[in-house]
Amino acid sequence: MSEQLVQQMCDELTKLVLIDPHTHINPHSAASRTLADIMGYHYYTELAHSAGMPKERIEEPGLDPKTKVGRLVESLGHLDNTIQVSWLVELCRKFFGCNEERITTSNWEALYDRAAAKMAEPDWEDQCLKQSGIERVFLTNDFDDPLEGFDTNRYIPCLRTDDLVFHLGKSEVRARLAKATGMECAGATSLRRAIGKLFEHFSSHGVRACAISLPPSFSPVAVSVNEVDPAIKRLLQGEALSPDDATLVSRFVFWTLAEYCAEFRLPFDLMIGVNRRVYPEGVFQGQDLFDQRVSLIQYQALFNAFPQVKFPISVLAQISNHELVSYSWIFPNVYTNAHWWYSNIPAYIEIDTRARLQAVPQNKQIGYYSDMYKLEFAWPKFSMYRQSLARVLAQDFVIARKWSESRALALGRQVLRGNVETIFGV
Amino acid sequence: MSEQLVQQMCDELTKLVLIDPHTHINPHSAASRTLADIMGYHYYTELAHSAGMPKERIEEPGLDPKTKVGRLVESLGHLDNTIQVSWLVELCRKFFGCNEERITTSNWEALYDRAAAKMAEPDWEDQCLKQSGIERVFLTNDFDDPLEGFDTNRYIPCLRTDDLVFHLGKSEVRARLAKATGMECAGATSLRRAIGKLFEHFSSHGVRACAISLPPSFSPVAVSVNEVDPAIKRLLQGEALSPDDATLVSRFVFWTLAEYCAEFRLPFDLMIGVNRRVYPEGVFQGQDLFDQRVSLIQYQALFNAFPQVKFPISVLAQISNHELVSYSWIFPNVYTNAHWWYSNIPAYIEIDTRARLQAVPQNKQIGYYSDMYKLEFAWPKFSMYRQSLARVLAQDFVIARKWSESRALALGRQVLRGNVETIFGV
Amino acid sequence: MSEQLVQQMCDELTKLVLIDPHTHINPHSAASRTLADIMGYHYYTELAHSAGMPKERIEEPGLDPKTKVGRLVESLGHLDNTIQVSWLVELCRKFFGCNEERITTSNWEALYDRAAAKMAEPDWEDQCLKQSGIERVFLTNDFDDPLEGFDTNRYIPCLRTDDLVFHLGKSEVRARLAKATGMECAGATSLRRAIGKLFEHFSSHGVRACAISLPPSFSPVAVSVNEVDPAIKRLLQGEALSPDDATLVSRFVFWTLAEYCAEFRLPFDLMIGVNRRVYPEGVFQGQDLFDQRVSLIQYQALFNAFPQVKFPISVLAQISNHELVSYSWIFPNVYTNAHWWYSNIPAYIEIDTRARLQAVPQNKQIGYYSDMYKLEFAWPKFSMYRQSLARVLAQDFVIARKWSESRALALGRQVLRGNVETIFGV
Repeated sequence: MSEQLVQQMCDELTKLVLIDPHTHINPHSAASRTLADIMGYHYYTELAHSAGMPKERIEEPGLDPKTKVGRLVESLGHLDNTIQVSWLVELCRKFFGCNEERITTSNWEALYDRAAAKMAEPDWEDQCLKQSGIERVFLTNDFDDPLEGFDTNRYIPCLRTDDLVFHLGKSEVRARLAKATGMECAGATSLRRAIGKLFEHFSSHGVRACAISLPPSFSPVAVSVNEVDPAIKRLLQGEALSPDDATLVSRFVFWTLAEYCAEFRLPFDLMIGVNRRVYPEGVFQGQDLFDQRVSLIQYQALFNAFPQVKFPISVLAQISNHELVSYSWIFPNVYTNAHWWYSNIPAYIEIDTRARLQAVPQNKQIGYYSDMYKLEFAWPKFSMYRQSLARVLAQDFVIARKWSESRALALGRQVLRGNVETIFGV
Repeated sequence: MSEQLVQQMCDELTKLVLIDPHTHINPHSAASRTLADIMGYHYYTELAHSAGMPKERIEEPGLDPKTKVGRLVESLGHLDNTIQVSWLVELCRKFFGCNEERITTSNWEALYDRAAAKMAEPDWEDQCLKQSGIERVFLTNDFDDPLEGFDTNRYIPCLRTDDLVFHLGKSEVRARLAKATGMECAGATSLRRAIGKLFEHFSSHGVRACAISLPPSFSPVAVSVNEVDPAIKRLLQGEALSPDDATLVSRFVFWTLAEYCAEFRLPFDLMIGVNRRVYPEGVFQGQDLFDQRVSLIQYQALFNAFPQVKFPISVLAQISNHELVSYSWIFPNVYTNAHWWYSNIPAYIEIDTRARLQAVPQNKQIGYYSDMYKLEFAWPKFSMYRQSLARVLAQDFVIARKWSESRALALGRQVLRGNVETIFGV
Repeated sequence: MSEQLVQQMCDELTKLVLIDPHTHINPHSAASRTLADIMGYHYYTELAHSAGMPKERIEEPGLDPKTKVGRLVESLGHLDNTIQVSWLVELCRKFFGCNEERITTSNWEALYDRAAAKMAEPDWEDQCLKQSGIERVFLTNDFDDPLEGFDTNRYIPCLRTDDLVFHLGKSEVRARLAKATGMECAGATSLRRAIGKLFEHFSSHGVRACAISLPPSFSPVAVSVNEVDPAIKRLLQGEALSPDDATLVSRFVFWTLAEYCAEFRLPFDLMIGVNRRVYPEGVFQGQDLFDQRVSLIQYQALFNAFPQVKFPISVLAQISNHELVSYSWIFPNVYTNAHWWYSNIPAYIEIDTRARLQAVPQNKQIGYYSDMYKLEFAWPKFSMYRQSLARVLAQDFVIARKWSESRALALGRQVLRGNVETIFGV
């Protein structure tokens, strides 16, 4: 395949300004202030730890930003090959005038200072978005987020619901719920009502999606109020539940969320397959892994029960992509959603993108989201995706199917941006 | 890799006239009469539905063919990217003089009429086969098919057995069995005898394979007549069976089929991994999906018990291909059989073909079958496969292993046709 | 991608002299004496059998080497496509002056004689290693191997422990253990002590790794002496254990091995996912397959309990690679180890290598081992790997990430050799 064609198509795709449909941006502090914000991203801390750096060295309390970066840079030699470090280098080139091919113990300090100066500019947030070709960004909001003090047109609220489904057993979660809704739950019925209040609150602030991450063992089914009420009452009184009862409660809450998604016409982003705290001694956010023995058949009842709800689905295990392609091909309400976490590397993005573009209706594919915590990452992550997308469009459409470049680019633009608009209604 | 080499090799492979070893052709009405026969293929209806068209609009009772096509064409804009729509466009180009790169609401009607005129020619069936480079076609015959009124030399009978293994609990299936065999079953022994009669009937009409599709949960083992007899007696009296008893009966019937395959020297095509009616509100034939958590280890007892039976195996989940490659590499009676349904897209055909050609004896690979319901699909589907095959032969053999083109093409011809002859004895 | 670039990089990588970190070489008879030693490799016998040759013909007692080779050559026509036969042809070209593109019934005999003459040269072993670019070779030693009579600097001992973990129920294994340790075990405590003696013995002979292959069902957890003692006592008295007790004993022994690996600072090679004797009528060493429904989550307790032990991990099912990449990315003590057995074909090596090089720290990847039984196989097997590695380095680093060739080659050298030195301390 002609690399020139790939590059040319990639350049064209890069001209399109995007909406990023899933991030962890804090809208009150969206951009970074130092390289420590950037290199503190769990990808770098966990890889540095994996390559041999003790957790204590990385997470030492009271570490100042510059020292922290200096330490992490020591590990980069072991991580040079990773795509994650290429994101880092790319963003330093793009934003901070870095000309080096590597960040090393001998060149990082000047870079640190130059970056800090750049990020101290009062309009850095705007500059960064503009240079990155991003105009709107979905958030991941806690259910009790007041959603105030930021521009919800630029930073679009998204109701994240893991705590409600899996952590109602924690008193602090229940306290947050009580505070956010102004009501004390007494049982299943009032819990449902409280959740409804959250939807009302989010809805009045322009929410565009409900979202959750789910363990491989989860399998949603409808649970009646009567069935779950005794367990919820015990839970609300602070009793520890049996695993079966905990599952019952999780299913009830999850199903309730789906019902409200139907009522409030919200897409429900499902991020399927993560096991939390597999490596509890790992660094912050570097402890989760997965069991790839999971199937979308576990969601059969859900997809059938809510034909009116859109389910953009992300899968953690690469092997789940074929099921995702097939379920999206059959179920009108199942959508392919980007390349998540451990599957978010070019080797897998390319295989998965090929299959999706060959078999899923083109109006049902959300190409990519950045999943970023800081704005600076949109650029290198979307760039990585655009490279893979351009490669697939060039190979499978322009070359193999003899499409014109412009026709293939139109397809690319639809999965990059058009579908984000139509699926989430932004 | 030189695209020119791929194209050249593909052109050479296209000269070979083929036998299609698995289809759903109705030999009494093998070719289409209008584009509605073609666009009524479940790939188009299910994708149109998936992309947003209500089932009612697609399956409205009494819909005339032309209106139906007009409606489906409305969806094509959303499906343009799919390989299935490329089959449609390719066959319209090949057979109906279509010059458009897309079929749209503004050009479909002329195409519809031109196609109808072409298909009305009295020898259209022969023309279509000839232009497609296909000379013989395997069927999928119900167990009670009289197998009369067609040329069994061109349309080769294949005994499809899903109903016997999984649906004996339905009174209409039992009634069909009684009628086909002229005997009433009273228990396991007579059921076995009845099945034997089916094999005799099919054998006398040139059957070349027995075939079945199997759910991921199925695991065949030998079941004795004594063990299963009580359950079968209850079943024959119309009683509903417990899940365990239903499994026992399925296993008994399946094992009995394998025994007859041994006796009648018939290959037993296993199509492994489909869950039926996962989306019961889907369009006709667009309701089935799969659970990829399946293993060929479930067939260990079968493969060991019947060394004399050839088992050409198709797997639904792409991830099953590595097991299929490995089991075919070790078991003399396990054969790789084409690229089935949700795995039948170039992205997966290419990966799977590479692995098979690198690790499975070349006399044990059936390259492709069309699975078609209407003859017009052999051309675009085999063309798609030939493209992928040519790509793998060029990359992995001519370039990487420095084979001559003619040597690589000989390998290609063996998996395209030669093995169909030797494995099925046609 | 330019094939010339791939070739150039492959040629550079070929200049590096290697250490082979896992083989089944018998150090007392490391090289072959005739082509029968080479073609007796299970890959050829099992593939010949799979392609149709009766086991009896291959394993006829008293068969002389030349007749055996003559028979196996008859099958090569069916196996010509396989990468395994390409290994055979490549090594015959490299070592025995073979100019043919195929080994056939008409040319094999001259080759046989020429090869026998070559291998009869007194320094053939040295010549072969030198020509292959291999200087040190890890062994697979039975736990009762005296480890004497060979150069442990060239042939590095590795303690293989399958027998201890899974076959202590066999009296001959217990007898071998008693003989090797000079002690009779009376229960869990003395069994642990006996195992310690094995580690001492191996340690005093330069052992560099402990190793084991594991079935998909295995899931290690800590088992206390008290808990397991009754079962071990019954076992030592020759009683057959229940499956649960057998599992308990296996887990205890396995965990004990991990404890000694910590104490003796030995890496513990885990080869995960093989089912033994799936096809018991297969040829010698051609009976094992796998169930791909396995997850590294089964090893969570182990990885957490032994942060000080390095676990180089090989997975049998290709679909396990994504988990392996992800676990190596998170757990500091998990290492990716080569491409094992059914995954050891270029189609899978390439996909797996891409993912590893993009996401696992570069100091944690062992690129390849030959797994060979005879020295002649290092050359073609490492050549196959180098081709795949060069392709990935060229595509993903030189072309896609614009690395210089020398930078990409340094990465290649690290996974080919550097990490073998640092991980195993050789």
